[in-house]
Amino acid sequence: MKGVIRCGMTLAILAVVGWARAGDLPDEPAIFRDGARVLFQGDSITDGNRGRSPDPNHILGHGYAFILAAHYGRHLPDHHLTFINRGISGNKVTDLKARWQKDALDLKPDVVSILVGINDAGSVIRQRDPAVTPGEFERVYDELLAETKAALPGVRLVLCEPFILPVGPVKEKWEAYSADVKARQEIVARLAGKHGACLVRLQEAFDKACEEAPAEYWIWDGVHPTYPGHQIVAESWARAVDSFWRGP
Amino acid sequence: MKGVIRCGMTLAILAVVGWARAGDLPDEPAIFRDGARVLFQGDSITDGNRGRSPDPNHILGHGYAFILAAHYGRHLPDHHLTFINRGISGNKVTDLKARWQKDALDLKPDVVSILVGINDAGSVIRQRDPAVTPGEFERVYDELLAETKAALPGVRLVLCEPFILPVGPVKEKWEAYSADVKARQEIVARLAGKHGACLVRLQEAFDKACEEAPAEYWIWDGVHPTYPGHQIVAESWARAVDSFWRGP
Repeated sequence: MKGVIRCGMTLAILAVVGWARAGDLPDEPAIFRDGARVLFQGDSITDGNRGRSPDPNHILGHGYAFILAAHYGRHLPDHHLTFINRGISGNKVTDLKARWQKDALDLKPDVVSILVGINDAGSVIRQRDPAVTPGEFERVYDELLAETKAALPGVRLVLCEPFILPVGPVKEKWEAYSADVKARQEIVARLAGKHGACLVRLQEAFDKACEEAPAEYWIWDGVHPTYPGHQIVAESWARAVDSFWRGP
Repeated sequence: MKGVIRCGMTLAILAVVGWARAGDLPDEPAIFRDGARVLFQGDSITDGNRGRSPDPNHILGHGYAFILAAHYGRHLPDHHLTFINRGISGNKVTDLKARWQKDALDLKPDVVSILVGINDAGSVIRQRDPAVTPGEFERVYDELLAETKAALPGVRLVLCEPFILPVGPVKEKWEAYSADVKARQEIVARLAGKHGACLVRLQEAFDKACEEAPAEYWIWDGVHPTYPGHQIVAESWARAVDSFWRGP
């Protein structure tokens, strides 16, 4: 610990501004221009029991969107950023598509971050109607992104990879889940490439975290991250966005 | 050795990304021993619409407790920490006292963090019955802390200073609020000294933040922090705790 303090002092001399640490949130992603509106979209992982009223209390939900907004809101007050959460529990990509005009385009965001796919996977595995197959997932997601770029020229897109860990109901049907979610991860990566979006890889981050603590420490039911799990999502998002727009 | 490794990682990061920043959360407060149980207690600022069921979703509420738990839970998985939130909206110190056995002592915490006082101030200023005057506040708070130390030998106490900013309903009665809350801040500081607790000064942090953005950016109604405001509480808590138990 003393080493860290000494190191911090060294850095203070070297870098003037103080010290940083591996695994924390980067300072100032290049996409956060003055007045930027940052929209988080998705399912329950994004929703996080967010407020539905104009009351600013609890408005960002209880998850990675809140962690990111709190951090950047606190450290970049002069950027006048607005963070918006419109995740809705249970949503599949088809649900996003149906409410996209009202819950995305009309909000005029500069950054659109999407995390979707796990309910789509569940709809196939658990044979819930209407099932969104990987093919349908790709087609609708592709349309959604094309529509977004057409309506919002210059928008920055962030696509978060859906992820799972073998816990609870997901563990029970692990073979089906891992094959289906893997297919959707590949789709999301492909769409990110096609649409010039930043891809946030999350599966690898969670797999790696399982070397430090059991799967249920990070994702309590195989799908929904715990609070340390949400920190993984937030840090992965920040690092991916930072490096994607900052360039080599 | 750990410090050296971390220092090396820090330098590597600095070299690659070219940035660093002061004001983030410290690494590893000395109070977080292996298996530590960390209890957050207080009013609505702590409550943050936390879950009331055993469901681990949203269990820590939407605020500084969540930010701290997510951060330390992610970065110290090998410490097996448990974070517990038992804040209840509207609570005064007398309400904490009434439910202290069940909602604090019975949980066998190793760290007890308390943020209370603003509803006590409101009860006097808005003449709500039963009003908790500063004198009553000190007496009951003192008993609460004595009771805690007697029941939980070796417990680490963290007392968070109540805070306000001149916004909305607080601004309307600013003179009364600032005088009353100031008195309670002095009481909390006195009790921290008396009971060997770590004091988290928050008023100064919020006052200083107002040099960077308007008061309502940090506290939307004069009492409840926004998400950047919760980050201020979290970082102040982490820094105070870190320096208090780490020693000079």
